Amino acid sequence: MAKAPILTPQAEDFPRWYQDLINKAELADNGPVRGTMVIRPYGYGLWERMQQEMDARIKDAGASNAYFPLFIPQSYLTREAEHVEGFAPELAVVTHGGGKELDEPVVVRPTSETIINEYFSKWVQSYRDLPLLINQWANVVRWEMRPRVFLRTSEFLWQEGHTAHATYEDARDYAARIHQDVYYDFMVNVLGIDVVLGRKTPKERFAGAINTLTLEGMMGDGKALQMGTSHELGQNFAKAFNTSYLSKGGQQELVWQTSWGVSTRMVGGLIMSHGDDKGLRVPPRLASVQVVVMAIKGDEAVLAKVREIGDVLKAAGVRVQVDDRTDTPFGRRAVDWELKGVPVRIEIGPRDLENGTAMLARRIPGGKEPVRIEELAALLPKVLEEDQETLLRQSRERRLSRTTDVATIEEAAEAALAGGWARIPWATLGAEGEAKLAEQAVTVRCLVMPDGSVPETDDAEGALAIVARAY
Amino acid sequence: MAKAPILTPQAEDFPRWYQDLINKAELADNGPVRGTMVIRPYGYGLWERMQQEMDARIKDAGASNAYFPLFIPQSYLTREAEHVEGFAPELAVVTHGGGKELDEPVVVRPTSETIINEYFSKWVQSYRDLPLLINQWANVVRWEMRPRVFLRTSEFLWQEGHTAHATYEDARDYAARIHQDVYYDFMVNVLGIDVVLGRKTPKERFAGAINTLTLEGMMGDGKALQMGTSHELGQNFAKAFNTSYLSKGGQQELVWQTSWGVSTRMVGGLIMSHGDDKGLRVPPRLASVQVVVMAIKGDEAVLAKVREIGDVLKAAGVRVQVDDRTDTPFGRRAVDWELKGVPVRIEIGPRDLENGTAMLARRIPGGKEPVRIEELAALLPKVLEEDQETLLRQSRERRLSRTTDVATIEEAAEAALAGGWARIPWATLGAEGEAKLAEQAVTVRCLVMPDGSVPETDDAEGALAIVARAY
Repeated sequence: MAKAPILTPQAEDFPRWYQDLINKAELADNGPVRGTMVIRPYGYGLWERMQQEMDARIKDAGASNAYFPLFIPQSYLTREAEHVEGFAPELAVVTHGGGKELDEPVVVRPTSETIINEYFSKWVQSYRDLPLLINQWANVVRWEMRPRVFLRTSEFLWQEGHTAHATYEDARDYAARIHQDVYYDFMVNVLGIDVVLGRKTPKERFAGAINTLTLEGMMGDGKALQMGTSHELGQNFAKAFNTSYLSKGGQQELVWQTSWGVSTRMVGGLIMSHGDDKGLRVPPRLASVQVVVMAIKGDEAVLAKVREIGDVLKAAGVRVQVDDRTDTPFGRRAVDWELKGVPVRIEIGPRDLENGTAMLARRIPGGKEPVRIEELAALLPKVLEEDQETLLRQSRERRLSRTTDVATIEEAAEAALAGGWARIPWATLGAEGEAKLAEQAVTVRCLVMPDGSVPETDDAEGALAIVARAY
Repeated sequence: MAKAPILTPQAEDFPRWYQDLINKAELADNGPVRGTMVIRPYGYGLWERMQQEMDARIKDAGASNAYFPLFIPQSYLTREAEHVEGFAPELAVVTHGGGKELDEPVVVRPTSETIINEYFSKWVQSYRDLPLLINQWANVVRWEMRPRVFLRTSEFLWQEGHTAHATYEDARDYAARIHQDVYYDFMVNVLGIDVVLGRKTPKERFAGAINTLTLEGMMGDGKALQMGTSHELGQNFAKAFNTSYLSKGGQQELVWQTSWGVSTRMVGGLIMSHGDDKGLRVPPRLASVQVVVMAIKGDEAVLAKVREIGDVLKAAGVRVQVDDRTDTPFGRRAVDWELKGVPVRIEIGPRDLENGTAMLARRIPGGKEPVRIEELAALLPKVLEEDQETLLRQSRERRLSRTTDVATIEEAAEAALAGGWARIPWATLGAEGEAKLAEQAVTVRCLVMPDGSVPETDDAEGALAIVARAY
């Protein structure tokens, strides 16, 4: 009798595989209020590592963390017309506080441009105060009609950057710097996801922005996921909140602004990029546990050895966990570590001890082989780097093999509906073609230049549209 | 003409001094919704360092971080009778989401015992799942009638730990471990505040707890501030949510629980413990900027030297910032660093360069002296350690000199109203005396044993009550 698979196979039902993995690897649960989620310790560990890596890059880009209130007066949102139009349908509204009905209802922040501009307009006085570069790690709420854990949740965790600059050029360059040096660098070099850098079409732009830069990843089923965005806000919020400064020349000028964010949605992207039918595969540079050292049996000598190896590997700079829970069957623990996607398992039993060897099981390429125990500390950093590269290479190969160059709107729709990306000249597609694709739930993910660079205008000559179904 | 002081002097009006300092040192602003606050980058930097230090200690105590939803169904809160009674008056209620009135209103979490128990009751099945040790970094909302920045705000940031154990003893010991090894260690050794470890009286207990352990600090005006609490919850929430496990013996048993938290209120405690009429004084172990290296003038050689010293000190493990903003007058910058409480300023101008010396200005003991530049890297770590000890010693001296042993309720009230702490036998005071003091806004901060240990019961023989006015 064949064993029932632990997860629904991807090929059978990708969305169900995703949900199965999240449950069985103990990443998250659905919350009691529709669309909310509980992030369990192992899932939160992924987010914590993402935060650490991102936070260091954000600080390198010169921004400082701060914190703005969760509650925003309803009147703030209405000051920027496009912004309120975009967010009104998703708002959660607090009407009662401290046992009384409030005079003015407050909204739970869906994003913080408005409340932040209220303060920027006080803090920014002179050109000396610019650029003002602020980042916030926070929860936000956007009421979600079709929730899916990590991907679309009514409450999610994110960072949101908000900056003010003296000139258009400085703001534009900063939005591009975050896009490239912070987000792209992190997603490619830590997450191992071969995202595409692009520009959103006017239709897909952030509500209130003059330009939205995006990073799009191809998931295991060929659909696209927007992994992060960096916006040029122009002077739209500066006008609405009168955020201005005294220039060197003695003139009162409006600032130019950016905002940019990535969220717990990246955890969903990680799962759908690297997961397989056995579970998650975590890139070593992200993993909070890179190596688990497992005692096969509760033999005293074995337990002593796994702990010793744990210490040696820790000293070698490896993020290691010792699994000595030998009251749980070994097979069950091994399957659990596979589900959780820990890159390397080192398995040791009494016979291995006699031979001076351990079994090295690699989650990313798969396979097991015996290795001499004294060689582990030197070997593992190399193995982990190799695995990191493998994930990125696989992500890139998938994207290249499942992206088709097409010449017509019909071909673009066909390629997207078949589970891939289509690349079509934007001059051929245009806003009309975009609307037509939307009828089949196919969207323009972004515009790119043929050399891979990001178009500088909405109608840059030669720009290509990447077209796909998306999460 | 005498210069106007930068801050209202403490002796003149302590609350106004506090508010002045927060404004002028750019720590925080009031938010637009009553009782909320905007934490500005320098203030948030204090909180970030608190988070880092606390998080490491919490993980050393075996807990893992996770995240539970902001929104809690109203019905959850009502399941534990004392809990809902305690929190009902402070709740913010969301009645509308996504443009519609909700079927069941949801509350914005004031704390997470209820929602966490809902999940613990699913996750905990067997004794193998225990202890379950979870921590969450989050924002919470408690509608505040008399708000004061950092101390009492309608929204604040905190960590809340929640644990489940197989036995009463294990839960009790864990609550005590957090109290002592995490909170006390952090507050004394990092914040430099000589807090008292004690037990709350039944009246002051957390709503739903069977025992609340507290850490009380004496502020600069002699009032007390509750800096953190660790609760034994007994089986109250376990009963309400049926959080039970299959014991080794095959019985279904309810778990025993703890919860514990510290918040951005600690930033307020830091200010009121160590601040003086010139501004804040940040303990070196906490400071994100321990040393600022200032160019007095924009001379090329001076700028090159301050940057070089910055690099040398960074290499020596000092958290350093270079201040080369010479388009702002030196005096103004120096006053600003004093306000912000950076422990050490190194000031360099053209004449210092000629002499090979720098001025070393120490914020904590006060005073300035010339030091040879090449000695700075060796000298500074010692200076910073000395300053750290000075702050703790001053905190201890204040507490000891302003605490009075008294024998009657009248004397206790008198000592507290005069701006100090009174220590009185709990047997003399009792619940009746406690109620009488409350009429004069004087409270029992905690019960302690004469040897400084924490009473094990509500009526431990020989216990002393510490009585004070409090924030």
